[in-house]
Amino acid sequence: MTIETVSTSRAHGGVQGVYAHDSVATGTRMTFSVFVPAHDEVEALPVLWYLSGLTCTHANVTDKGEFRGPCAEHRVIFIAPDTSPRGEGVADDDAYDMGQGAGFYVDATRAPWAAHFQMRRYIEQELPALIAEHFPAADMGKQAITGHSMGGHGALTIGLRNPERFRSVSAFAPIVAPSQVPWGEKALGGYLGPDRAAWRQADAVALIEDGARIPDLLVDQGDADSFLAEQLRPELLAAACAQAGIPLTLRMQPGYDHSYHFISTFMADHVAWAAERLRR
Amino acid sequence: MTIETVSTSRAHGGVQGVYAHDSVATGTRMTFSVFVPAHDEVEALPVLWYLSGLTCTHANVTDKGEFRGPCAEHRVIFIAPDTSPRGEGVADDDAYDMGQGAGFYVDATRAPWAAHFQMRRYIEQELPALIAEHFPAADMGKQAITGHSMGGHGALTIGLRNPERFRSVSAFAPIVAPSQVPWGEKALGGYLGPDRAAWRQADAVALIEDGARIPDLLVDQGDADSFLAEQLRPELLAAACAQAGIPLTLRMQPGYDHSYHFISTFMADHVAWAAERLRR
Repeated sequence: MTIETVSTSRAHGGVQGVYAHDSVATGTRMTFSVFVPAHDEVEALPVLWYLSGLTCTHANVTDKGEFRGPCAEHRVIFIAPDTSPRGEGVADDDAYDMGQGAGFYVDATRAPWAAHFQMRRYIEQELPALIAEHFPAADMGKQAITGHSMGGHGALTIGLRNPERFRSVSAFAPIVAPSQVPWGEKALGGYLGPDRAAWRQADAVALIEDGARIPDLLVDQGDADSFLAEQLRPELLAAACAQAGIPLTLRMQPGYDHSYHFISTFMADHVAWAAERLRR
Repeated sequence: MTIETVSTSRAHGGVQGVYAHDSVATGTRMTFSVFVPAHDEVEALPVLWYLSGLTCTHANVTDKGEFRGPCAEHRVIFIAPDTSPRGEGVADDDAYDMGQGAGFYVDATRAPWAAHFQMRRYIEQELPALIAEHFPAADMGKQAITGHSMGGHGALTIGLRNPERFRSVSAFAPIVAPSQVPWGEKALGGYLGPDRAAWRQADAVALIEDGARIPDLLVDQGDADSFLAEQLRPELLAAACAQAGIPLTLRMQPGYDHSYHFISTFMADHVAWAAERLRR
């Protein structure tokens, strides 16, 4: 598989790049960004995946995430994929919470979405293989995952389904139980169909209820987040983790909203959380 | 004078706000951003002005500048104005280096620019008065200034003309001698007319040659900056500072370009430079 280098720029001693490729999983051109910190020539660096939220591309966190300083300090590669397939001929929805920009990190099984919306395969299989092939500094034996909102849902579900691959899981203001909130009911119903049994693989709380286990988990949540009560509901994750015996560090951050001002404030903590687990 | 609060968001323990007001100097609606770190109720905080480069608004550095962490650490207020008047009825130029987004921090004396392009008065007089009125935490007796590219030119010239007001001056990849480079010759010729004597107040190197003095100066410059040789020419500033006995710390940063990846990498150093001088 080939990739196109869209841009590279020196940043915080390393290289911030943007890349594009023709995805087999989605059947579309996909763009992602990678920050590779300064490192010794023979050094293999651990990898932190960041999955973005509704309406975002790779660019939002790449511009506003303030991750490069902490990633340079901890010598961690930071990868930011897009949130969906895009372009003409790709199904879409007029609303911001479905279709392009809102892939929910699932493999759609229903028309018109199934043709391109294969974001689970894309994130779990295709893109890691591409990273391994084109970024020799990446140690794919040491991966961590985080994300925001819909991307927090992605990080939690992908982390819970692949505990052997991800040594660290965290999230910023995640959708923890899409089966129980309006955003998730619409998206999972649309992408996966009305049979709610099929949703459980795409719902962090349901995965934990069904036996998925990870060593621990960090979640930050702003208490002035306008989506908190209706869409995010971290108390459901707290209850599931307590029941399952998964140590959850859930930090309610006073005064913080759902924006990148919240994410960037706590990004250094999430990079440090991942780095500590990746270096063990 | 009244201001409108466009948005506020908690960030790095403080508040990142965006504000708008009807400017007397420019005769237009102007937008700016202010970050106020967490502080004690009675504490007065020093102020760091950041002037942006060609094509930018307040938003570029507010999104990508990575200043909030360092400003929170040093308890410094960060103010990012726009780079020109804007809107219908405001003169413009098809090129990116003249007109809207390219005010060059001068008071235009020539038609069609003079009607609105009064950015020197706006930055030196009107906006500081507005800040003093509406941000009680700001200690206007302790101000510092920095900026990027065209905004580096703004920071240097405003700092050199007002040494009693600005205790600290620094710049990222500044235009140091607009009278001697294409960007500056076009802009100063357009805004101030063909008499080059009138340009000297808007040219850092000329100001120093004419006797302006500041205690010291920090400049960072990427050596992979595509504007370095033709437009920026830091060697002219180095020569003028050497001749005048102004201690200049000029750091040529290997591999860095002209983008916010460069600025954000060294932002913490410039905030620390300012904070050290503001706290003396």
